[in-house]
Formats: sequence, C-alpha cells, structure tokens
Amino acid sequence: MGMTMTQKILAKHSGLDSVRAGQLINCKLDLVLGNDITTPVAAREFKKTGLDKVFDKKKIAIVPDHFSPTKDIKSAEQCKCVREFARDKDIENYFEVGQMGIEHALLPEKGLVVAGEVIIGADSHTCTYGALGAFSTGVGSTDMAAGMATGEAWFKVPSAIKFVLKGKLSKWVSGKDVILHIIGQIGVDGALYKSMEFTGDGVSELSMDDRFTITNMAIEAGAKNGIFEVDENTIEYMKEHSTKKYTVYTADNDAEYEQTIEIDLSSIKPTVSFPHLPENTRTIDEVGDIAIDQSVIGSCTNGRISDLRIAAKVLKGKKVHKNVRAIIIPATQKIYLQALKEGLIETFIKSGAVVSTPTCGPCLGGYMGILAKGERAISTTNRNFVGRMGDPESEVYLASPAVAAASAITGKISSPEEVK
Amino acid sequence: MGMTMTQKILAKHSGLDSVRAGQLINCKLDLVLGNDITTPVAAREFKKTGLDKVFDKKKIAIVPDHFSPTKDIKSAEQCKCVREFARDKDIENYFEVGQMGIEHALLPEKGLVVAGEVIIGADSHTCTYGALGAFSTGVGSTDMAAGMATGEAWFKVPSAIKFVLKGKLSKWVSGKDVILHIIGQIGVDGALYKSMEFTGDGVSELSMDDRFTITNMAIEAGAKNGIFEVDENTIEYMKEHSTKKYTVYTADNDAEYEQTIEIDLSSIKPTVSFPHLPENTRTIDEVGDIAIDQSVIGSCTNGRISDLRIAAKVLKGKKVHKNVRAIIIPATQKIYLQALKEGLIETFIKSGAVVSTPTCGPCLGGYMGILAKGERAISTTNRNFVGRMGDPESEVYLASPAVAAASAITGKISSPEEVK
Repeated sequence: MGMTMTQKILAKHSGLDSVRAGQLINCKLDLVLGNDITTPVAAREFKKTGLDKVFDKKKIAIVPDHFSPTKDIKSAEQCKCVREFARDKDIENYFEVGQMGIEHALLPEKGLVVAGEVIIGADSHTCTYGALGAFSTGVGSTDMAAGMATGEAWFKVPSAIKFVLKGKLSKWVSGKDVILHIIGQIGVDGALYKSMEFTGDGVSELSMDDRFTITNMAIEAGAKNGIFEVDENTIEYMKEHSTKKYTVYTADNDAEYEQTIEIDLSSIKPTVSFPHLPENTRTIDEVGDIAIDQSVIGSCTNGRISDLRIAAKVLKGKKVHKNVRAIIIPATQKIYLQALKEGLIETFIKSGAVVSTPTCGPCLGGYMGILAKGERAISTTNRNFVGRMGDPESEVYLASPAVAAASAITGKISSPEEVK
Repeated sequence: MGMTMTQKILAKHSGLDSVRAGQLINCKLDLVLGNDITTPVAAREFKKTGLDKVFDKKKIAIVPDHFSPTKDIKSAEQCKCVREFARDKDIENYFEVGQMGIEHALLPEKGLVVAGEVIIGADSHTCTYGALGAFSTGVGSTDMAAGMATGEAWFKVPSAIKFVLKGKLSKWVSGKDVILHIIGQIGVDGALYKSMEFTGDGVSELSMDDRFTITNMAIEAGAKNGIFEVDENTIEYMKEHSTKKYTVYTADNDAEYEQTIEIDLSSIKPTVSFPHLPENTRTIDEVGDIAIDQSVIGSCTNGRISDLRIAAKVLKGKKVHKNVRAIIIPATQKIYLQALKEGLIETFIKSGAVVSTPTCGPCLGGYMGILAKGERAISTTNRNFVGRMGDPESEVYLASPAVAAASAITGKISSPEEVK
C-alpha cells in the first residue's frame, strides 16, 4: 500500500521505509516553534529536564506575537520569561518586538520552513506551513518542551482526505473562501486527526498566500495537518525566502485516502462563517442584512501582502462607514514595509482605517479591537467561537479580506461587488 | 492692579471687567472635552440632570484615545458607552477609531481650540491648549458633566508665575527639555494652582509643537494652566487649522506675578527625568550608565510630526539595539499620514522600531508596551510615577524624542550626539 505526502514525510523523519495510518512513530524535528503564550509553560517544563541546552539552537523559533507589544503586566511577564529563556538558551530565531511578526507569516518569510520538513509548534495554526509541502502541526507546551530537549516528537500517523482542486477562482474569491467553503462542507470535525492533502490542477492557480490561508485553517476542520503538493510556485517561493534544503514528496499513486473530495474553484463564491463556528458558512448572496461594528483585516490567516493588496483595492478612494472601526494589521514588519511602499498603508489611513503594528491582537481577544457586549465584527481571522474577540455576547463573522473591506465601507456584511 | 493673560481670559468669560487671584468666578466655556476613561462617568452624571440635550453639541469633543482600539472587554464597554452617549446627544466632535488621535494633539489639529478661549477637559493634560494662548485646564468627570449641561464652570482665579524665555535652543534640545528643566527647577508642586505664563523673546524661537509639549506638562509642576503669548507663529497655526474666531490677550504691564523666572533657552541641555517623579531631572551628561528595555516615542506630549521628524533623523540608517523594544506612536491619523509621506514611518520600520496606530497606550500603563517587573523604559511621555507604565517595580525615564531615539539605538540612555 502506498503512502500520502504526509506519510512519506513522517516515514522519512522516523527512519522507516514506510508507515501506515494509525501507526505510532517517533520523528526527528526540523523546527520547534513557540509564542508568548505557550513558551513560558514550555520553558518551565524544559527546566524540569535538567538540561542546560536545547537540542539545536538553530532549530527553535520563538515569536512573542500574541500579546505583544505587551498589553498588560501579565503579558509583559510572559514576554520577559520568553525573552530570558531565549537569551539563556541562545535561541537563534528569537524575534523581538521590531523584528517580530505573526509567527505563521513570519517563519515562511524568514525561510525557516521548507518542503519535506517536520515542524511542530505550540500553537494550533502551526499547520500553516503545509502550504510549502511540509508536515507541520500544532502541539501543546509540554510537547514543545520535549521537542526542544530531544529534537523529536511522537505521532500517530494520520489517515488522509484528498482534495482535488480544479478550475480557477473568480474575481474577489480567494483562499479564505476556499477553506471556509470546505469547512462548511465537511464540518469543524470533518477532518479529525486526518491530513488534508491538496492536489490537482487547481493548485497552481492558487497563490502561495492563498495556500497559506487554506492550510492555516486545516485545524478548523479538526485536521492533524494540511498539505499542498509542491509546484513551481512553491519552489520559487522557497528559493526566494530560504537557503534551507527542501525535499519534495509526492503521494504514491496507490496511496490510501479515507475520502476524495473534488473542489471546483470556479464555483466557489465569497463565503462568510456565521457565529459561532467556522462551519456555519453562507455564500455572500445568502448573508442578508447584518450590520457590523468592526472590521478586522489581519492575523496568521489573512495578514499577508496579497490580503492587504485586496483590501486596499476595495478601500481605495472609499471611506470606512462612520459606525465601523476598521482595523488592519500587517502580519509582519516586512509585509508592513512592502504595503507602505506600495501605498497600501496610505490608502488604509486615508479611508479611515487604522493600521496596527503586527500582532495577533484581536483574533484571540488579546487586544487592538476587543468587542463589547452585543457588538459584531467581520474578521479575516480563523475562529468565531463564543467570546473569541471579546464579550461572550459579541459575534464574529469570518470572511476574506475583500468581504471584510467591503463591509467596512457599507457598515454591513457586503460583497466587494457592492462597493465597486 | 493689572491682569495676567490667564486672568484676562477668565474675566472676559465671566462677564467681569477684571478678576484677581483667588477670586471665585463662573465662566462660559468654549469647549468641553472627554475621553474613554472619563466620559462614561460624566455621561452617568449628565443623566442625573434629567436634561435631553447638551448645552451646545458643537462645543463638546469626545475622543476615545486611552484604551482604544480597545484592549479588553472592559475598555470595549467604556468605548461603547462613550459612543452611545455621543450618538444620543448628537455630539459633532466625536472621533471614532480611524478618525481618532490622542485628544491633545487632535483638538488643535482639528481647529477646535484657539487663542482666548476657555476650555475644560476631563483629562489632566488638557492644559496643552495654552500653547495657543487659551485658558485650558483639566477637570474631573463631574465637572465635565456639569460643563456639558450648563456650558459653564467655576474657577478660583489662579495667581501666576512668569517665565521669561530668551535665546535659542541648541541642536537636539527641544520643548521637552525646556519643560523638564523647569520642573526640575521648581518641582512637581512648584506651580501649584498657578498659571505658568510663558513670554519673552525666546517664545518665537520655539515651534508650535515645542510649545504644545511645554504647556502639556504644566500640570506636572502642579499648575492650573500653562499659557504662551500669542505670536505670528500661533496666528499662522490657527489660520492653517481653524476657522474659529480667536482673541489675543496680552498681560497688562502691571500684572502681578508670584515669581518671575528667566529661562535662557541656549543654556538648556537634553534633560532626563529619573524615576519616579518628573522633577528628578539630570542633564544628559549626568545620566551615567542606564540600560533600557524599551523606548517609547509618542503621547500627547511628544507624538507630533516634529517629534517624529527628530526621532527619524536620529534613527535613519541605524538599528534599534537588540535588547530594546522601540515603540513609536504618531499622535493622530493626520500625523501618521504626514510621517508616512515624509518617509519617517519607513525609517522607523527599517530601523527595527514598531509603529502603532494612534493611542495613549503605554503612557498610562494602558497597553502597547507595558513593562514587566524590573524593566526600564525611556519614554517621551509625561509621567514616570511608580508603576505608570506597568509593574510597580518597573522604571520610566522621561526624555525628548531625540534622546529616546538615541537610547533605542545604544540600549542605554544616550545623547543623540553619541549615535551621529
């Protein structure tokens, strides 16, 4: 029996010729990631090992992005703990405020993750790097600590769902709509502990940023990981960003999938997830009249340069509705600078949006746009659980940057077509 | 007996020919200001009056700047309360996130305050507008409520200290150094309930931004208000920003002052206030070796365009020290846009600083750079009280943008001369 992309990567990293779904294996790790929420716990656990050093100071990345620049004394203590650990262990890829960005946008940009690698991160959206053809998954702080100590982690080899993409996205439709569409179709536990393997001719129609958005939200379907076939765009991206050696794994012809789902990209419409689960999707024409108080464009899901370009295209020459706070958050300093050079930041400010320094901030109810009771936000982030962005009686609607920008202008959830 | 500038303005607004220090008077108000911390309390007090309307919906300004974009559910509720009050009372000068800026930078920029006016604000740094030759002072939320209801407020007429400025500032010395120097000289209660009246040939050597910084910190010497003589620069500033009618009041020749202090601007050096009081000043050459963890450039004291220009001049082509978080906060959206056009934002990002959307944030321990225990910041803000920017065991050193920028580069409190 053949193996999927994921299984091949896992086999290679566990020194086995082959693995099968359900098998328990021990894998060598290429990178271990932590942030300001999870690293303090991991640092305490690491201390218990009695080890002086981490397994490889080049293979750990620490990014204080969640409550940083710090929102209060508690988050300042967390960041201080992270900083001291990074200094003490001489972690090469520790990113201070100013070098920092949202971890899942930052690591690919810095060339720290490439195809064929095994990456764990103490953050659920670590699955993002699957866009590059890596196996990448979120773990708890204790696993992060063990990973930093040993350079290894154990996994149960996941079974897989194959998504065969075909066709091309329509205007104003992006990777976010694709993944919301899929989650709407299969549900938030539709891929529980499975690999979501994206393949087919449609892959090369998707930009790398679209792919990052799609694998980023694999976890929102319960998946262990999401992974894209490597194509020329992937290789170009890696060559541009990284000096690391990559390995391209393709699925065997006789690889086993629990399910194969064909997705016609051309049929996907702008899609919105209603409260309080990402699976509660409606296409934009089914949304109805939903007034909003806030529009958030950013996060590890949609804070990349092409997201900002789309938002700027919609907002250019328009004004944010007087009842709406529009908050735009470039995911990294590099993206911020690029957006600045392209005039996107100017467009945002002129439209009456505010531009924040890179931070996860509002996505997880951290800061920079927390909702009061009864308030409603449209957001390009990845979760709309109860109270995710503030008060338990607030509401979050997930959408693409195009829809979030259009809604900021009209004051209600809107298609970009409505404002052009 | 003649009157001071302040006394003349107060006399005029109370319908009296003359007033004397210590007299209790009732004044007509030209503007009443509140923010997201003080307006909710004022709104509740206003409700008790049973009035439907404020005295004049054009003469109230509400700026949610302290914890906005909101940092948590509590601040979101505060902002919601403010927003609802502003909508309900049809307040013309309510500034939502996106239009918003730090109140004391925003109001002059929007032309809402001009010479000869009487302005109260439920924020202690309301004294800022004295730079334009207005009487402007901070009040409590209850006085704000009464002001919104009646358009009047009572005052005890202040006595005055006259500051006769002469000479010209040296390179790298700015208004911040002037006011820190003065507070160092007279102490944090040196002008208790008095007017600080700035006059002399040196006035016209100071930019309007320098004057705003100086009157902004009048309260840090305990003053009731700070006020500058109106000169051509003031008139030019008002003509550029405002359509309001202004009135220039000059002190009588026989006005009474409790004290006259001559300040030779050319003798002032870059000055730093050590923890935990603004009066603990040392000139930059007396500072010694003080490592810092954070540098904050912004606030109602020093977040204006000339502050950012100075910071950029120092940071251009340099890198922020690896142990330092440099946080730069343009005070308003207009300043942000101007800084963007001049390439200052690009300079900041390239240097490794982060640029926040306008907010009071870290100045008052709000968010966007809160200090952990034992951490130390140099900051262009106005107060370095115990725990002001975070943990009670953190420290804040007050300085100019030039010194804060230089210190960000070296990692310790430094003169700009050290990095050029």
